[in-house]
Amino acid sequence: MGFIDELKFNADGLIPAIAQDAQSGEVLMLAWMNRQALDQTLAQGLAHYYSRSRRKLWLKGEQSGHLQTVLEVRADCDGDVLLLKVKQAGGAACHTGYRSCFHRLRQSDGSVREDGQKVFDPGQVYKQ
Amino acid sequence: MGFIDELKFNADGLIPAIAQDAQSGEVLMLAWMNRQALDQTLAQGLAHYYSRSRRKLWLKGEQSGHLQTVLEVRADCDGDVLLLKVKQAGGAACHTGYRSCFHRLRQSDGSVREDGQKVFDPGQVYKQ
Repeated sequence: MGFIDELKFNADGLIPAIAQDAQSGEVLMLAWMNRQALDQTLAQGLAHYYSRSRRKLWLKGEQSGHLQTVLEVRADCDGDVLLLKVKQAGGAACHTGYRSCFHRLRQSDGSVREDGQKVFDPGQVYKQ
Repeated sequence: MGFIDELKFNADGLIPAIAQDAQSGEVLMLAWMNRQALDQTLAQGLAHYYSRSRRKLWLKGEQSGHLQTVLEVRADCDGDVLLLKVKQAGGAACHTGYRSCFHRLRQSDGSVREDGQKVFDPGQVYKQ
């Protein structure tokens, strides 16, 4: 059995994929893949996801140029989650300009603080 | 608005939570939380998840003793994924005995290789 055959896509044909910076170990984002997104990712070596809101295949960085080169693909013990080790072009995975999408840190009083490195100005990158 | 108020639980009332080793940065697992699991996690400082197969709240490590002390809780930009930085008791998050659940590494020929550090023998830990 191959890697793909052992995966479990959900009822919508999707599987969550975690993108982790291969060098720093920082967790950059989680997005969803359908079978086609995974096939394209493996064929091209660039992360493709499936946008649930736009209902279409999506090459990560197609607008911003912030592509993710995929260096390693892992599945978890249940075969229902993927972990990608990536090299993040532009140094930032988040459309807000932060390195990681996980920049919303819970404080002990239950509030939120923005915590992360802001790498680009989204107004500049997505201006067209 | 507080941290929890900004979260988006899915139609089943669940949100995916990634557990990352706070020290090594290794991604250990992904599991799901409902609101109650998150509340318990925040109240006790120990990771609780919601088991979709058993349909119940689950204290991670309740059987194995491999509890996860939660040091930090983050949400992503969309508020629909959580990232927990944890201290993993027993050194392993996976019920198979591996440090990380992501021990199934895709090879370039499309096959799978087990790749990870096996910390315990599940036959011993779950013998009762």
